[in-house]
Amino acid sequence: MDKYIFELRMKVRDYECDLQGIVNNANYQHYLEHTRHEFLTSTGISFARLHEEGIDPVVARINMAFKTPLRSGDEFVSKLRLSKEGIKYVFYQDIFRLPDMKVSLKATVETVCVVGGRLSASTLFDELFAPYLHE
Amino acid sequence: MDKYIFELRMKVRDYECDLQGIVNNANYQHYLEHTRHEFLTSTGISFARLHEEGIDPVVARINMAFKTPLRSGDEFVSKLRLSKEGIKYVFYQDIFRLPDMKVSLKATVETVCVVGGRLSASTLFDELFAPYLHE
Amino acid sequence: MDKYIFELRMKVRDYECDLQGIVNNANYQHYLEHTRHEFLTSTGISFARLHEEGIDPVVARINMAFKTPLRSGDEFVSKLRLSKEGIKYVFYQDIFRLPDMKVSLKATVETVCVVGGRLSASTLFDELFAPYLHE
Amino acid sequence: MDKYIFELRMKVRDYECDLQGIVNNANYQHYLEHTRHEFLTSTGISFARLHEEGIDPVVARINMAFKTPLRSGDEFVSKLRLSKEGIKYVFYQDIFRLPDMKVSLKATVETVCVVGGRLSASTLFDELFAPYLHE
Repeated sequence: MDKYIFELRMKVRDYECDLQGIVNNANYQHYLEHTRHEFLTSTGISFARLHEEGIDPVVARINMAFKTPLRSGDEFVSKLRLSKEGIKYVFYQDIFRLPDMKVSLKATVETVCVVGGRLSASTLFDELFAPYLHE
Repeated sequence: MDKYIFELRMKVRDYECDLQGIVNNANYQHYLEHTRHEFLTSTGISFARLHEEGIDPVVARINMAFKTPLRSGDEFVSKLRLSKEGIKYVFYQDIFRLPDMKVSLKATVETVCVVGGRLSASTLFDELFAPYLHE
Repeated sequence: MDKYIFELRMKVRDYECDLQGIVNNANYQHYLEHTRHEFLTSTGISFARLHEEGIDPVVARINMAFKTPLRSGDEFVSKLRLSKEGIKYVFYQDIFRLPDMKVSLKATVETVCVVGGRLSASTLFDELFAPYLHE
Repeated sequence: MDKYIFELRMKVRDYECDLQGIVNNANYQHYLEHTRHEFLTSTGISFARLHEEGIDPVVARINMAFKTPLRSGDEFVSKLRLSKEGIKYVFYQDIFRLPDMKVSLKATVETVCVVGGRLSASTLFDELFAPYLHE
């Protein structure tokens, strides 16, 4: 059912934890972004180079449901699948704590493509992402 | 209609901007958190002291819609209103760029109260927040 | 003796505290950077605009002595003075906790100017900073 | 000559880069901290558990010399050696860009041990670190 197309293992870094002793919520957004960019890299795209060429993938909307909080020392795996909805590419991103695979975060990230400052259909992404689209 | 009960002026700090030259998305979550904690402070509650007493307000879900991105040098105002829905307190939080008041972010933040590690009704919050609830 | 030429009041944000319950050390570097950039802004320079023009002030060396740690809720003032040493501009930056003015951080930040990717004397900074130099 | 006792490979994450397109200086402090904590972990110590037991290793002073800046996509290795000087443990920490091993950062981090809020000799660390001390 959940056909993930990319996954990345990471480990909590202590500076990501806040005074509650758990990973600060904003850092999950960092984990999600890093996972998406590493996915892009795996398809041959550099986020930084795209920006230099005037193409900016931009997040339009994020929904995050926080489940089991991650703590100092925890390892986790961040998984991703992709769907096209209108001109948006929607990333379904889930984070699981290792080794027990408890769900830590479930997120939906809607992205659009801005070219030269304007919202744009992205034929570049259409070509690159075609093999990864979730039916 | 939008009866905000608290607001906080802030200014973008350059280290919050990423290589796209705009505030990195995760930093909006920081802005939202700081606004909620300053709201708590204004009602006489310290987030850090709550934690020491074993009471942890926890974010269960966040929805963020990113509108006009903030940039280096931008000032903005972060506004908040509050609603109780079941055992959740839901914060409606909007960020406006100054001085033109263009909407930069619209967010909904659902929070629950964890006492001694367990999900809990919070009579403390019920009392404190009663004057601020949006009907 | 310590003739500061610029100062900025700030307040600790809870997400800047780590699991020790105090501001994580790296955030002091953020405070120092923000203070320098606000100083630049006060002299009419935008750090972001400089970058767009190919001029990048770059930190070559930082020394930081951590004294009284800042905590959740603390307010503080970040002060700065400036000295030219060879082609380097050296910022002496101190952070004091409010209201008791206890020293929280003493730092020295050596900066150089990179123009078009090369280390450079900066006549721009020489002109702008002349009124602020510490004899 | 430089007998490193621990090393950790990492990769730049795009959110760590700022509007100059390079890793923001404060993030090097994060890299250094994460390396020290992973070193502690490798000797069987958890930084978080230490804190719960009232033992807080604290950074008293940091010197950082910034050499070749790291950029989006860069991998690097963070190396560390250790020396005892009086009651301080001094970490010598260097970061090298991969694969060309260009020096990116050279740092010295002086740490002391705070037990129950007071500066303290740490017999715990003396025992644990003995095998790693640089003569």
